[in-house]
Amino acid sequence: MTFKSTLIIGLLSLSVLSIAQEPIQPIKPASNINLAMMELGKKLYFDPRLSKSGFISCNSCHNLSMGGTDNLPTSIGHKWNQGPINAPTVLNSSFNIAQFWDGRAKDLKEQAGGPIANPGEMASTHALATSVIKSIPGYVQEFELVFGKDKINADSMTSAIAEFEKTLVTPHSPFDQWLLGDKEAISAKELAGYELFKNSGCVGCHNGVAVGGSSYQKMGIIKKFQTSNKAIGLAGVTHKDSDKFMFKVPTLRNIELTYPYFHDGATTSLKEAVNIMGEIQLGRQFTDDESDKIVAFLKTLTGNAPAFDLPQLPPSVAETPKPEPFK
Amino acid sequence: MTFKSTLIIGLLSLSVLSIAQEPIQPIKPASNINLAMMELGKKLYFDPRLSKSGFISCNSCHNLSMGGTDNLPTSIGHKWNQGPINAPTVLNSSFNIAQFWDGRAKDLKEQAGGPIANPGEMASTHALATSVIKSIPGYVQEFELVFGKDKINADSMTSAIAEFEKTLVTPHSPFDQWLLGDKEAISAKELAGYELFKNSGCVGCHNGVAVGGSSYQKMGIIKKFQTSNKAIGLAGVTHKDSDKFMFKVPTLRNIELTYPYFHDGATTSLKEAVNIMGEIQLGRQFTDDESDKIVAFLKTLTGNAPAFDLPQLPPSVAETPKPEPFK
Repeated sequence: MTFKSTLIIGLLSLSVLSIAQEPIQPIKPASNINLAMMELGKKLYFDPRLSKSGFISCNSCHNLSMGGTDNLPTSIGHKWNQGPINAPTVLNSSFNIAQFWDGRAKDLKEQAGGPIANPGEMASTHALATSVIKSIPGYVQEFELVFGKDKINADSMTSAIAEFEKTLVTPHSPFDQWLLGDKEAISAKELAGYELFKNSGCVGCHNGVAVGGSSYQKMGIIKKFQTSNKAIGLAGVTHKDSDKFMFKVPTLRNIELTYPYFHDGATTSLKEAVNIMGEIQLGRQFTDDESDKIVAFLKTLTGNAPAFDLPQLPPSVAETPKPEPFK
Repeated sequence: MTFKSTLIIGLLSLSVLSIAQEPIQPIKPASNINLAMMELGKKLYFDPRLSKSGFISCNSCHNLSMGGTDNLPTSIGHKWNQGPINAPTVLNSSFNIAQFWDGRAKDLKEQAGGPIANPGEMASTHALATSVIKSIPGYVQEFELVFGKDKINADSMTSAIAEFEKTLVTPHSPFDQWLLGDKEAISAKELAGYELFKNSGCVGCHNGVAVGGSSYQKMGIIKKFQTSNKAIGLAGVTHKDSDKFMFKVPTLRNIELTYPYFHDGATTSLKEAVNIMGEIQLGRQFTDDESDKIVAFLKTLTGNAPAFDLPQLPPSVAETPKPEPFK
């Protein structure tokens, strides 16, 4: 073994060691993806014909041009219905322990079925959405290729959407480059922000690959969170009083893009969000300089957005059930 | 000159001659495009922050996944407002003599300003849209590169959107391949449909590069068009009684994708649309076989959709005027 190769192995071990010691892990690009299923799922994700109106698609509220969110406090649904809660980003959502703020869907596939049939969101039914897709020759062909003959149903549709969503990860953020050994990838200020993030306790909940998404925590541990939002979190699922205001910890990946913040979308200011979290979760008043540094660190979590051609949807035919936007 | 090159020149002349004799010309790919301006315009086209709600973008109603339309009879606007008329396709709209069904905008740039400030569509104002875009650091940089310093205004924004829209042409349809000399590009049935299209008089209005878009014609020349739609066409612009029900002839390019048809979006069946046109514009009752053939021909007008990566929009900052979806 030469001196050079020993050195390289030494540096690599050091780098692997240092990643292992950090409470945040870098994102790996998606693997083990069924490409044909992903392409089909991408079309369905962008297809407003899954809604009763023919106007709302998954991408309407989880907009892949805007960090996988709608950047609104709460979403707009069928007939301009005002949604009850902030739309979480679809980016890196495959890393979540469960889906929705209250974790009521166990995975991406189960989540995908929710909004389609929610009267305040896409306002369709699984039966109607299925009959729409079944009527479209281009989809019939593609489903047959991916799932086999006569396999268009809610199960296959949501499987395809989930397969596409699994690819919506954002590797190669400056912070991940730093984790992987490029010590120039973040600035001294950003690094100081990371140290504060760790030392203040933020990392207790915001950790792992997604810097969140791996546990439920009470919103307002030290101090009550002031909001007019009616969501009660996990308690709505478990009906346990102790789960009141327990919400899934949101990912901080791409947080610069996923404003406004919190389950009620109360603030568009990342600095204000950091200060509120410090106060109500950690009982800590950050100085102006401290919250500036933490914000600087958080902005290093913006990774490479998934890049793909805007999909072209197969056209409806005369027999396709018609959208009913105004009925 | 060899025999072979003489033969090739001879065939080329023949091909040029035959195109010149046809009333429809092939689409050429867009040229003379300012790429930086196009890229900026693409972002603006997909940006819902140009609307008051933060939810509606140009692409909401002129959806580039769906033939540049919303595939609805009339569009959905701010607070679910029901639009008065069918959204025309943005594809190949650069070939139109003017924009909107009644031609009230002289070009793409003038058109782009309309929906942004229309209370029933995007419901913003040019002043508000400008202040939103001006507040976004990523846009400020990009406008400076394209237009120079401090040049963010309605004029530059609509110029950029129009530059992007100029690229939304769909060359290389089977029919264009046929026009350019590939006699195998369309079937005998499709060719028979084209002959009927020419011989029956359809081509009197639907001609040129866009197979329409080059003149205004009365909807219902021979027989009144039955509709509950209140649009009066060109008369709304000129205030001349003789212009009542004069509409810009729509392009038939990609007609398979741009259902439902007519300014009122009355039918999703292309065959029914052909039959109605025969009856009310030409006083002609097509046989079942004839309208089948014409439909087969019309489907050869579907060209290559513009292919591009879904754009990534620069994020708002705390100072950006907030969307007001529910006010």
